[in-house]
Amino acid sequence: MFIDELIEKIKQKRSNVIVGLDPRLESIPSSVKEKYFKEYGKNLKAASLSILEFNKTIIDYVYDLVPAVKPQIAFYEQYGMEGLDAYIKTCDYAKEKGLLVIGDIKRGDIGTTSKAYSNAHIGDIDIEGEKFETFQVDAITVSPYLGGDSIDEFMGDIKEKGKGMFVLVKTSNKGSGQLQDLEVDGKKIYEVVANMVENFSQQTLGSYGYGEVGAVVAATFPEQSKKLRKIMNTSYFLVPGYGAQGGTAKDIVDCFNEDGLGAIISSSRGIIFAYQKDGYTEKNYGKAARCETIKMIEDINSTLEKNNKKFW
Amino acid sequence: MFIDELIEKIKQKRSNVIVGLDPRLESIPSSVKEKYFKEYGKNLKAASLSILEFNKTIIDYVYDLVPAVKPQIAFYEQYGMEGLDAYIKTCDYAKEKGLLVIGDIKRGDIGTTSKAYSNAHIGDIDIEGEKFETFQVDAITVSPYLGGDSIDEFMGDIKEKGKGMFVLVKTSNKGSGQLQDLEVDGKKIYEVVANMVENFSQQTLGSYGYGEVGAVVAATFPEQSKKLRKIMNTSYFLVPGYGAQGGTAKDIVDCFNEDGLGAIISSSRGIIFAYQKDGYTEKNYGKAARCETIKMIEDINSTLEKNNKKFW
Repeated sequence: MFIDELIEKIKQKRSNVIVGLDPRLESIPSSVKEKYFKEYGKNLKAASLSILEFNKTIIDYVYDLVPAVKPQIAFYEQYGMEGLDAYIKTCDYAKEKGLLVIGDIKRGDIGTTSKAYSNAHIGDIDIEGEKFETFQVDAITVSPYLGGDSIDEFMGDIKEKGKGMFVLVKTSNKGSGQLQDLEVDGKKIYEVVANMVENFSQQTLGSYGYGEVGAVVAATFPEQSKKLRKIMNTSYFLVPGYGAQGGTAKDIVDCFNEDGLGAIISSSRGIIFAYQKDGYTEKNYGKAARCETIKMIEDINSTLEKNNKKFW
Repeated sequence: MFIDELIEKIKQKRSNVIVGLDPRLESIPSSVKEKYFKEYGKNLKAASLSILEFNKTIIDYVYDLVPAVKPQIAFYEQYGMEGLDAYIKTCDYAKEKGLLVIGDIKRGDIGTTSKAYSNAHIGDIDIEGEKFETFQVDAITVSPYLGGDSIDEFMGDIKEKGKGMFVLVKTSNKGSGQLQDLEVDGKKIYEVVANMVENFSQQTLGSYGYGEVGAVVAATFPEQSKKLRKIMNTSYFLVPGYGAQGGTAKDIVDCFNEDGLGAIISSSRGIIFAYQKDGYTEKNYGKAARCETIKMIEDINSTLEKNNKKFW
């Protein structure tokens, strides 16, 4: 099952860090994209091939360091069918390298429509008795605004196929509080969602006491994550917002349980475009990503150690 | 701009009805799909071609009756790349027939990620100075859980390209109340979102006094829609839940303003799979869809007339 595999990889690699594969064409080294522009022109195909080559190089340089990667589908979807082709091939390549893939898709709808998204991303689709997998990943992110029944539509595939899901609870953007922080009978909306998530998590516990259903909890709101950790005892946290968005290791230490587990910390720009920082060169963008990944792991692990949350 | 075009088509066709193109392969007549299964086997390609042919026939039979169609992308996404190919071709065909296309995509994320979804569905993507359109539709649905700043990322394309957006306010599922009906300082969450939507709408008013930003308000909760109509004075409502989901013309009459405008009522299964009802045959599935569309328009228009809300 997803959550057990995730924890095994975390322990084996001594790393709670995951890499967000959010390719921005304008930030991809020109040495990568110029050859495709030359061959195909400045078009969607060249963009897609540039993204794929870039992602593969990043994966080559980090696959032994992290348990999972998290491609953000929007950055592929904007390049249309060609972009989604790069998404699928990126996911496949990551899996070949032994990584878990978390599709950051933030889907969610009602009834059979939610089930259709589940079919697409973590389940399969039945065509007159034949089964096909399409955008197959190991876990996805989903949006909770439509209520628990909309999330429940994913539970069939999660239970039967051993897949994972992270429900948006508290997001990293400034405006996240506009709905999420509203208070109802002394409870914030994000706490209401957190209770819903914990309930789903407890239905799907694995060997380490964590469930297949977790929560997206931003690094940028440390006080809230402390509170949320208590509410969602068995839920794994997917934590965006470290690095480029301003979250530090100190900010995220309360996302972890006393066992040093319970959270994966995601960084995208800070790692994949590390070559733009001082001391690196465009030519060695893979190496730059590797160095920044190692730094991030050390930063988090040493903070965990200081807080008596060693998991290794 | 989207909203003006929508209202012009509504007036010209005397119809507030839109058709949801949510193809379920198992409900597509076997006369359509068997020939593709024979030619290509039972696979994604055959499924995609069946869906496309089915949709085109439905469009042929309803395009003169309705202002817009609303394909639900999940039902295409579950067939992978082949399915999304059918989505794009369905949208293109509907546009050729003079219909507006509302992509029911319920996307939403933060910052540049939301912008990437906007690029994909209502904007364009820049590849070193060259612009490309990918899943181009006239309007989309978006999810508000991440807050106003996440929705604001779509406003650039809405203003510059004259596109539309419907934000989820009150959805039609049973569990919709779990978050949406919670009360904060005497205000339901859906009212908080409604105020946000109305604010965006007022920034984008067209010639008829309605804005480019509207709201998804379900037919299944008539009391709430009455309240919401007052809060969102200038916002157009996209109303799902009529027919198969249980909403009647009486239930949705308060979604309209006194001018008989302000809402489009969507039906999917009840129209596109009408051939399964008594009195129709599989062979004439297009005609069945046409008959049910006419019935629905008459049902709604006569109810509007009785309530002094004639718009024609």
